[in-house]
Amino acid sequence: MALSPQTEAAAIAPEPIHTTLYCIRHGIAAERGTLANDDDRPLVEKGRQRTAQVAQRLKTLGITFDHVLTSPLVRAQQTAEILQAEGLTPAIAVCADLAPDGDLKAWLGWLADWQAQHPQGTVAIVGHEPDLSRWAQVLVAGLTAAGDRWELKKAGIIGLWVPRADRAIGQSELFWLTPPRLIL
Amino acid sequence: MALSPQTEAAAIAPEPIHTTLYCIRHGIAAERGTLANDDDRPLVEKGRQRTAQVAQRLKTLGITFDHVLTSPLVRAQQTAEILQAEGLTPAIAVCADLAPDGDLKAWLGWLADWQAQHPQGTVAIVGHEPDLSRWAQVLVAGLTAAGDRWELKKAGIIGLWVPRADRAIGQSELFWLTPPRLIL
Repeated sequence: MALSPQTEAAAIAPEPIHTTLYCIRHGIAAERGTLANDDDRPLVEKGRQRTAQVAQRLKTLGITFDHVLTSPLVRAQQTAEILQAEGLTPAIAVCADLAPDGDLKAWLGWLADWQAQHPQGTVAIVGHEPDLSRWAQVLVAGLTAAGDRWELKKAGIIGLWVPRADRAIGQSELFWLTPPRLIL
Repeated sequence: MALSPQTEAAAIAPEPIHTTLYCIRHGIAAERGTLANDDDRPLVEKGRQRTAQVAQRLKTLGITFDHVLTSPLVRAQQTAEILQAEGLTPAIAVCADLAPDGDLKAWLGWLADWQAQHPQGTVAIVGHEPDLSRWAQVLVAGLTAAGDRWELKKAGIIGLWVPRADRAIGQSELFWLTPPRLIL
């Protein structure tokens, strides 16, 4: 029996591109002003523990990543390393766009390249506030998003479905936003 | 010792008004079209179980409500009754504004009255999609909010901090959005 035109189109069309994106804020770090260079502030013991608990909980929930990108700052890299140590990702890479005041549009360029290789992959980005929640609000609500009304705690998580990078702004969907306290 | 002007002001000023608001979608109900009147569709057994699990988890997390308002539809009222049966609230009331296509501004009138009695209380509203996530987006991002990019699953929860009702629109904050799957 011949396929209907619709069924045939579905059978030959490539799978639609979309990325499951987790935006994860670094864990609790040493107080501001305690190191000569703010970029070098490490996670404190409580921050390490909480981040590891969050990572273990993600694993229990069946959430893993194909790739983790992290801000170059020490507290973010250490957070990403904990995610990897807990078995959530095979790979970490440092991404300068994720430093404080990073450039969302530049990062979307990275995403376009990555989506070409991973049409339906899962990525986590580890970074800072207020940048991560602003990026998420722009991805969901567009460039005119209010921008400062989502609360992302340290080691907290925002989950988004992101379509093709070239039309991700204002077209992504929010499926999760949680502080650590409400998943542990 | 005299109080500093700031300390004295803090000591005599009334506490600021704000409400912790949980928007909870009803649990899984009988399929559309199975009852003569759609409003009468009850929760199915899986919906009852899931909702009870969510309620128990909220209790474990230390979340309770001073009051629960529910849509008049059967599936919402049954969801609210499960919250009460699990000990999360002393009181439930039916609120017509929470029916499908309900009126956010009318509900804010109720909130203003309630806040006068409970300046820092916690309320849950039980209702329907797409209304609940639209209301939440308008409360957080204002009347021009995109409005359809937050995913609220059945028995899922949105948590907001809401200031005084007369300036709640566009001034509320999102601190939680979760499907049941990611808290159970």
